[in-house]
Amino acid sequence: MSEVKIMLPEKELPEAWYNIQADMEVLPPPPLHPGTKEPIGPEMLAPIFPMELIKQEVSRERWIPIPDEVRDILRLWRPSPLCRARRLEKALDTPARIYYKYEGASPAGSHKPNTAVAQAYYNKEEGTRRITTETGAGQWGSALAMACNFFGIECKVYMVKVSYHQKPYRRTLMHLWGASVVASPSEDTAAGRGILAADPDSPGSLGVAISEAVEDAVGREDSKYSLGSVLNHVLLHQTVVGLEAKKQLEIAGDYPNVVIGCVGGGSNFAGLAFPFLKDKMTDGKAMRVIAVEPTACPTLTRGLYRYDFGDVAQMTPLLMMFTLGHDFMPSAIHAGGLRYHGMAPLISSLCDQKQIEARAYTQNPVFAAAALFARTEGIVPAPETSHAIKAVIDEAERCKREGKSETILFNFSGHGHFDLSAYDGYLAGKLEDYEYPEERVRESLARLEGL
Amino acid sequence: MSEVKIMLPEKELPEAWYNIQADMEVLPPPPLHPGTKEPIGPEMLAPIFPMELIKQEVSRERWIPIPDEVRDILRLWRPSPLCRARRLEKALDTPARIYYKYEGASPAGSHKPNTAVAQAYYNKEEGTRRITTETGAGQWGSALAMACNFFGIECKVYMVKVSYHQKPYRRTLMHLWGASVVASPSEDTAAGRGILAADPDSPGSLGVAISEAVEDAVGREDSKYSLGSVLNHVLLHQTVVGLEAKKQLEIAGDYPNVVIGCVGGGSNFAGLAFPFLKDKMTDGKAMRVIAVEPTACPTLTRGLYRYDFGDVAQMTPLLMMFTLGHDFMPSAIHAGGLRYHGMAPLISSLCDQKQIEARAYTQNPVFAAAALFARTEGIVPAPETSHAIKAVIDEAERCKREGKSETILFNFSGHGHFDLSAYDGYLAGKLEDYEYPEERVRESLARLEGL
Repeated sequence: MSEVKIMLPEKELPEAWYNIQADMEVLPPPPLHPGTKEPIGPEMLAPIFPMELIKQEVSRERWIPIPDEVRDILRLWRPSPLCRARRLEKALDTPARIYYKYEGASPAGSHKPNTAVAQAYYNKEEGTRRITTETGAGQWGSALAMACNFFGIECKVYMVKVSYHQKPYRRTLMHLWGASVVASPSEDTAAGRGILAADPDSPGSLGVAISEAVEDAVGREDSKYSLGSVLNHVLLHQTVVGLEAKKQLEIAGDYPNVVIGCVGGGSNFAGLAFPFLKDKMTDGKAMRVIAVEPTACPTLTRGLYRYDFGDVAQMTPLLMMFTLGHDFMPSAIHAGGLRYHGMAPLISSLCDQKQIEARAYTQNPVFAAAALFARTEGIVPAPETSHAIKAVIDEAERCKREGKSETILFNFSGHGHFDLSAYDGYLAGKLEDYEYPEERVRESLARLEGL
Repeated sequence: MSEVKIMLPEKELPEAWYNIQADMEVLPPPPLHPGTKEPIGPEMLAPIFPMELIKQEVSRERWIPIPDEVRDILRLWRPSPLCRARRLEKALDTPARIYYKYEGASPAGSHKPNTAVAQAYYNKEEGTRRITTETGAGQWGSALAMACNFFGIECKVYMVKVSYHQKPYRRTLMHLWGASVVASPSEDTAAGRGILAADPDSPGSLGVAISEAVEDAVGREDSKYSLGSVLNHVLLHQTVVGLEAKKQLEIAGDYPNVVIGCVGGGSNFAGLAFPFLKDKMTDGKAMRVIAVEPTACPTLTRGLYRYDFGDVAQMTPLLMMFTLGHDFMPSAIHAGGLRYHGMAPLISSLCDQKQIEARAYTQNPVFAAAALFARTEGIVPAPETSHAIKAVIDEAERCKREGKSETILFNFSGHGHFDLSAYDGYLAGKLEDYEYPEERVRESLARLEGL
C-alpha cells in the first residue's frame, strides 16, 4: 500500500509567509480614498487595522516571519494533511494524480482560521480590545470568534440576516467561542438603520454587513475591523497552505501541472496557489493555475477589471479589482462564501496578466462532483470547495482523454458538515442552476461608470 | 515549542486488532437464546451476522489480523492524531499531562467508522448484499452508510423517530452515502407496526429500532444486521484507537496513569482502554480506567449485572451485562449515543471485576467542560465526548490538589459540529440536569425478575 496522506511534523510548520508582491512584475495599483479618489497612505487605514497588518498590505519583502504566538495556535491543527485522492482517481479511471490539501481539520472546519489567528494576534499586540467583522454563512465569523477567544479580544460579528436565520449552527459556534452576533442589516449602525428604513425585510448581503462592521469599528476607540479575504495581508496569511503543500509534494516526489482553488474573495485559492505561482513567475515553471467561481457570481469570468468599492455603502477604499459592481446581489446559492461582488486585487492583477485562468460552474454539476468525492474519498466537502472539485474532475477527465498523467493539486478549503441542508436540496433535485443574467451584470457594471 | 500533535505514518496503522478475551481471567458468560435461555452456538447467529464476525465474537486469539482491504479504507483518516491538551492544562493550572486521541477527523466525525468498515468488509466477503441497522442521533448510521458505500452494499437504517425529525442533517449524510433511512417505529416491520398500533406518536428508542433492524435482516435472504457497539467484535475493531495511542505515547516518552472514555454501549471506551488494560492485567501496570456515563442513563453506576435483552421486543439473545432493563426509557439528553439501557458484556465483566471504575455526570457540568475545552483547545466536542472531558477535568483538578503530575489519556470520540443545537440550549441556560429517578430504575429492574 502506498500512502494516501502525506503528513509534516509540527516543526515543519512554515516560519514565514510568502509575499507574492516581491515577485510580481506588475503590482496592482494602490487603493484610493472613497471620497477624494486619491491613493491612500497607511495613516488613513490606521483607524480600522493595526499598523503591522497595514505594513504587510504594502510590503515588498518576499518572506514575512510568522510570530511564534501565531504558530503556537496554528499548530493545534497544522501542518494540515496533503492527501492523494486515489479512490477518486480510480473512479474516474484517469491517469492523472490528484492531491488535495485538507483544510477542513481546523476547529472551525475551514482554512479561515489561518488568517484569523494572525489578525487577532497583531490586534492584541497593538492594544485592540474589540474586533468587528462581517460574515455570510458564518465560516469567517466563526474563525475570527475562535481566534479572538484565544487572545482574549471581544468580537462582534455582523451576520448577513438571511444566513443568521437559516444557519443558526454557525451562530452557535460563534457564541460558544465568546463572540456576539447580530443579524445585518441591524439597528446598531447608521448604515444598517438606513437600509432597514428603506426595506425592513432586507435579507442583507456581505456588502451591507461590511459597511456596518467598518462603521462600528471606526466609531469606537477600542475597536478595529477585520476582513476574512480580499486584502493582501489576508492572502499572505493563507500561504502556509501552499508552503506546506510544496514540502509535502516534494516528499511524494511530485509537482503540480495544475493548481486549483475556488474563489469568493480569493484567500483559500491564493493561499495554495501563490507559493506555486512563485515558481511559475520566477523559475518559469510550466503550470496552469485555475480559479473556480459560481456562474451565479461570475466575478473573474464576467466582471470588469476596474476600481470599485468593497461594500454597498461605499465606505471602504476603492480597490482595483475584477468586480460585478458593489451593489451586485447574487442569487441565493449554497456556496455562501463565493457570493462576493469583487475579487482580491492580487488575484485580479494576476488574472489580468494571464498568470491564472478562471472558470465558472452552476450548482448541480458542482454538487454532483461533491457527491462523487464523498462517495469515493469519504469526506464531505463544503459547497465552496465543491466548485474546485468540479474543476479537478474536469481536468482529470481531460487527462484521460489526452492520455496524460498530469499532477492536479487543489485546496480542500472546508468540510460540508455545516452545509447538509444544501446536500438535502441537491439529493431531492431541488437546486437551481443559476446563471446570473448577462443583462443584470451589464446593468450593475453600468452603474459603476460614474465612479 | 514542544509538539502538541503526535502523528504516526500510515505504515504504523495497526496490522491486528487486540482481543482482550485472550487476557481476561474471568470471561463473560455466554449469550443465551431468547426463547430457551440456553447458551447459543455460532449457527444461531448466522442469520444475522457473517460467520467471520461470529468467530471474532468468541475468539480467544490475542491478535486478529486486520484485512488489507479494511486498512486501505481506514488509512483515509488513520492513524488519528494523539494531541497534548497543553492549553487546557494551562487553563486548569494543573501539573497533570492531558492527552486526547482525536477520532473526530474521520469523514463521519466520530470513531464509529472503525468498526463499520470492518463489518461491511466481512459482509461483502460472505456475499451479503444488504445490511440493516439502527441509529439514534445518527453517528452510527452515517458511519455504516459510508462503509457500505465503499463496498457497494445496500444499507437500510432505522433511525429513532425523534432524532429523525430533530436531526435531519445526519440523515442527509446517510442519504449522501447512499443509504435509505426510515423513522423508527416504522410500518416496515411487525415490531414497528405493533408499537405504532399502540401509540401512533411513539418517539421511538434505540431498543425499538434494534428490534426493527433485526427483524428486517432475519426476514430477507440477502440481508444481514449490523450493530455499532456492545458486541465483542465491535469493541475489538475499535482497539486500533488504543493501539495507535500506545505507540504515540511511547514517542512522547509517556504512559497513562488514568485512561478515560465515555460509555453508551461502550465501544469507544473499549477501543482506547483495552490495549492499556492488557498491560494492567498481564504486566500489573498500575492504572485507573474510568468509564463515564450520563446520570440520565446510569447503566454502570446504578444498573444490575445480570442477563437481559438488547432490545425492547426481546428478539436479541440475552447478554450478561450491566443493565437498566430493556424497556428503560432514558430522558431526552443531548448525548444520544449514551442513551442505551445495557453495556457491552466485556466492559460489564471488567467493571464487575473492578478492573475499571464508573462515574456519572449531569448535562450542565458536562457542557461546561465542553465549552472550556472548545475555548482552550479550539475543537468543539460532541456531547458524548464531553462526558469524558468532564471526568478528565475533575481528575486534572485532583492532580492539582494532590500535587501529582499524572498522565491522563482520553478518547475524543467525535466532534460536535452536528450538535450545535445542544450547545445553543446550554448557552441559553435551558438544559436540564436529569438524574434518572431511583424509583424508576428500581421499577425497570424489577420487571427483569421474571426473566
